[in-house]
Amino acid sequence: EPHECHRPATDSSLPAARGYTGRQHSYLNRLRRIEGQVRGVQKMVADDRWCPDVVNQLAAVTRATEEVAAALLEDHVRHCVLEAARDSSEAGQARMDEVAATIRQVIRL
Amino acid sequence: EPHECHRPATDSSLPAARGYTGRQHSYLNRLRRIEGQVRGVQKMVADDRWCPDVVNQLAAVTRATEEVAAALLEDHVRHCVLEAARDSSEAGQARMDEVAATIRQVIRL
Amino acid sequence: EPHECHRPATDSSLPAARGYTGRQHSYLNRLRRIEGQVRGVQKMVADDRWCPDVVNQLAAVTRATEEVAAALLEDHVRHCVLEAARDSSEAGQARMDEVAATIRQVIRL
Amino acid sequence: EPHECHRPATDSSLPAARGYTGRQHSYLNRLRRIEGQVRGVQKMVADDRWCPDVVNQLAAVTRATEEVAAALLEDHVRHCVLEAARDSSEAGQARMDEVAATIRQVIRL
Repeated sequence: EPHECHRPATDSSLPAARGYTGRQHSYLNRLRRIEGQVRGVQKMVADDRWCPDVVNQLAAVTRATEEVAAALLEDHVRHCVLEAARDSSEAGQARMDEVAATIRQVIRL
Repeated sequence: EPHECHRPATDSSLPAARGYTGRQHSYLNRLRRIEGQVRGVQKMVADDRWCPDVVNQLAAVTRATEEVAAALLEDHVRHCVLEAARDSSEAGQARMDEVAATIRQVIRL
Repeated sequence: EPHECHRPATDSSLPAARGYTGRQHSYLNRLRRIEGQVRGVQKMVADDRWCPDVVNQLAAVTRATEEVAAALLEDHVRHCVLEAARDSSEAGQARMDEVAATIRQVIRL
Repeated sequence: EPHECHRPATDSSLPAARGYTGRQHSYLNRLRRIEGQVRGVQKMVADDRWCPDVVNQLAAVTRATEEVAAALLEDHVRHCVLEAARDSSEAGQARMDEVAATIRQVIRL
């Protein structure tokens, strides 16, 4: 199902469309689960739990946030970058510049 | 200031001592800030915010959780592993086995 | 300059075109520099050099290989995936499936 | 088998002892294999191989260098940091400062 991705600023009269539109509910569930995991780690620290156990739990949080970030970026490229590329080569390249900068931020290059 | 780290199971009559004892308050603050960041990302998704912006915010969460994990492990080695090594070489090596396994979990080797 | 990327198997009569075509020389230079760095690390180990110094040098190798991987993937998406998306939405999505699998391999999700 | 780790500068009359002493041969083999992998990637680029295939090969190089770095650091902590901690708490902490800085370099915090 095609949907037109655009930054809100470009045309605020259009309804927002995102790469994750339609999967918002699923992303919110994953983010709420991460929030619960972070609160679980707080409880472990408050309860004086053994350090390597706390760190293993934090590693699960890190992994979960990276998985959500990777899924969001993938949705974005599939729906917003490829779609822009179909409009014009320049539009595709411009969106791709932004994705490349974001990926470098994520993997800290 | 020396404090004796031990798993609670080994001797539950002793007060728990952790590598992070004395810094618990600071760790809890950092974890609460991370929880706030995760809720901020949920709001961005609910508000249909632009995907790369959401991903950049998630990258900040990932980095913050990795920083807390690294700090906890460092505290643990300084206070619990080195201290055990002063008791006996075997005790130090045994604690080190556990830390090595935890680090491999964190960096996914 | 548009060039048609295709897997050799699909049509071996066509000259190979890659996302990195035209930058091959630059990539080979970067990879030769990495090879030199790896030999430098071998020499450090053979010379009994101090462990943290060896590890810092290895971290530079890791970073350099990740930078080359990120640049290759970026070239690939810009030239081979966006181009395929202009041919047909299905072609773009199929190439994107492959890129997504590769990225998950790189960041070990 | 205890061996005294020391930076060469501190006392050059002593034979160098490293956390990896005794495993030097195995580390050199692993590093030569990594060098061979890097040359393999050069050949792939020279042969115009498909981009995601090249990137998957590079990901194997990255992983192998991280595994060697993690193993070297583990040897170092086991042999040089824990040993120093047995001499004096201050010596152990000083070596630990160096390891912590190296780990932060490796994981880019």
